[in-house]
Amino acid sequence: VVPSHPPPESDGDESWVWSQIKAEARRDADAEPALASFLYATVLSHPSLDRSLAFHLANKLCSSTLLSTLLYDLFVASLAAHPSIRAAAVADLIAARSRDPACAGFAHCLLNYKGFLAVQAHRVAHVLWAQSRRALALALQSRVAEVFAVDIHPAAAIGKGILLDHATGVVIGETAIVGDNVSILHHVTLGGTGKAVGDRHPKIGDGVLIGAGATILGNVRIGAGAKVGAGSVVLIDVPPRSTAVGNPARLIGGKKGE
Amino acid sequence: VVPSHPPPESDGDESWVWSQIKAEARRDADAEPALASFLYATVLSHPSLDRSLAFHLANKLCSSTLLSTLLYDLFVASLAAHPSIRAAAVADLIAARSRDPACAGFAHCLLNYKGFLAVQAHRVAHVLWAQSRRALALALQSRVAEVFAVDIHPAAAIGKGILLDHATGVVIGETAIVGDNVSILHHVTLGGTGKAVGDRHPKIGDGVLIGAGATILGNVRIGAGAKVGAGSVVLIDVPPRSTAVGNPARLIGGKKGE
Amino acid sequence: VVPSHPPPESDGDESWVWSQIKAEARRDADAEPALASFLYATVLSHPSLDRSLAFHLANKLCSSTLLSTLLYDLFVASLAAHPSIRAAAVADLIAARSRDPACAGFAHCLLNYKGFLAVQAHRVAHVLWAQSRRALALALQSRVAEVFAVDIHPAAAIGKGILLDHATGVVIGETAIVGDNVSILHHVTLGGTGKAVGDRHPKIGDGVLIGAGATILGNVRIGAGAKVGAGSVVLIDVPPRSTAVGNPARLIGGKKGE
Repeated sequence: VVPSHPPPESDGDESWVWSQIKAEARRDADAEPALASFLYATVLSHPSLDRSLAFHLANKLCSSTLLSTLLYDLFVASLAAHPSIRAAAVADLIAARSRDPACAGFAHCLLNYKGFLAVQAHRVAHVLWAQSRRALALALQSRVAEVFAVDIHPAAAIGKGILLDHATGVVIGETAIVGDNVSILHHVTLGGTGKAVGDRHPKIGDGVLIGAGATILGNVRIGAGAKVGAGSVVLIDVPPRSTAVGNPARLIGGKKGE
Repeated sequence: VVPSHPPPESDGDESWVWSQIKAEARRDADAEPALASFLYATVLSHPSLDRSLAFHLANKLCSSTLLSTLLYDLFVASLAAHPSIRAAAVADLIAARSRDPACAGFAHCLLNYKGFLAVQAHRVAHVLWAQSRRALALALQSRVAEVFAVDIHPAAAIGKGILLDHATGVVIGETAIVGDNVSILHHVTLGGTGKAVGDRHPKIGDGVLIGAGATILGNVRIGAGAKVGAGSVVLIDVPPRSTAVGNPARLIGGKKGE
Repeated sequence: VVPSHPPPESDGDESWVWSQIKAEARRDADAEPALASFLYATVLSHPSLDRSLAFHLANKLCSSTLLSTLLYDLFVASLAAHPSIRAAAVADLIAARSRDPACAGFAHCLLNYKGFLAVQAHRVAHVLWAQSRRALALALQSRVAEVFAVDIHPAAAIGKGILLDHATGVVIGETAIVGDNVSILHHVTLGGTGKAVGDRHPKIGDGVLIGAGATILGNVRIGAGAKVGAGSVVLIDVPPRSTAVGNPARLIGGKKGE
């Protein structure tokens, strides 16, 4: 059940969401002894959301040559230094809870949504990229692509309140920009046409919904509140609050609310 | 070589298929010493198909926080308590052997087909879901989505004799129903339109073939024996034994055999 | 920065590329202490490109039942016995550096591109298949499909200078042939129609570019230098240097340069 009055986004969201996650984890650990150890290790033993997230991400993304302790320290330091990453993670959790009818709770999203985890790792990679720590940013991108099958270039700029639903196969290119409160289904590509260099990837406005398997190519603008249908191939600008469908995509139904 | 007279589906199938698997594994272990240890651990050391499957699934799906011993016990108990899951697994093995020209044997499917393994784990998650053990069911779904890139909601109902060929990127939503003897290629989505709540996913009849990359959205019915072409986007009912292709999909060629 | 005068493909390429990779790894290890251990283990501790590649592949593809030592020995032996596999790997590294604007260096491709790694593992599986070591070839294919979400049948013949960009979801069937200097984006299928047996998969000419999500089905020929648009469903031959787009795909713009 979605809490009936989700709080507005605020500085208090992080502690509120964390308290919900702990309560959900405690309830599940009591009801399902087989999960108690998992929930203790990933949630209940941690003092805060950022520590729980850092631990969970490090465990998922580590390998025999990229150690979990190194990744844990990196995630803890990045989340501590960048409150905006923590706030965006909280907004993503609220987005999944509000916009995905299959989301069973905040803990469900934190622990089980590979799209959520991929986006959080991307935000850390994005900060590293901006600090010219490019080799480490690219190593993180690569682990996320392998483990979650989500390939987001560290230079891409992603807003908050993002839902990557199912997430398998999502590809977001180097010069893409994604606004706030965007929902992106699986197999979506924000890619280049292969003909351009430099600024060559899509710009996605706030509140856009991109259906499963949609391929958006080139430095095109998808306006705020627009919808892109499943399986569309979009090579053109899409105006705000309009809908594009088909291969190649055409606009249908005009703008809404205007 | 496909055995010339595959037996009809019967109570004896499980022991017959298991004897075939052991013979194949013994032959491969003799011919390829590099695989002997692998084949002993996954097949030859086990007394039955369900123990071999439970061991193999547990090893694939475990993580540093979700231990293989816990998963092994869960799979052994579920397969022991639900003969219908074992029978469906056997039907799936026979389906791969009969319908996939690249399938080299039952052991090949058991050990190497991530689609086969994903479906077996889903059946266990589906039983857990029905028992209201939802946190554990969702944790299993999540591990399957990460490890095999196959995302099947535990509430979805899947028949027997299922072939998920290649399997990468398959997404099957919460209220979807899939009949018996259905073949589903990779990148297939049985999803929602995003506009409906409640019963919002496709219903797939017996014997349907869904081509690579097809996206079927909404509470539509794909009738028994129908075919959905690769890359189709299907938003409508498809009558039995008819074929739908294109984006958006249209029916072609009328019904067959009527 | 791409080296301004990449050398022609020659016997000297392997040592030249390896010296570049070591220089890049040394530079990154100096600049980023968090990566020093990783770069030492994967690159700097190895005497040659083939040892580095064998180590990295073995670590990626091993499991609790398929040991990394076994895979390492297999890759080392295969690369030593088949100079053509080493030459093709070098050509692939040069292809990524030349044709992918997001490729930051040879080491970036070697360490981080799952498409590159999947193709190298495939070449070893292809040799095993030709030697009738089919169980081991199929086990390798399966690990590559799980770990990299790239499913290439070991019997498929793949040229050199190949770029699998992003790579998630690529499927290449048993009787497919792919020429030299081909670029294949993610979610591309070279599959069968399901109606034919025997030689049933596409033949891709030299220098072809296949866009994201394109599905090419059946024993069709895509001529040298042709382009296949993103999201296309191709069921027909495509002449050399022509372009096919759409679902179903049609030819546009005629041949170029003729």
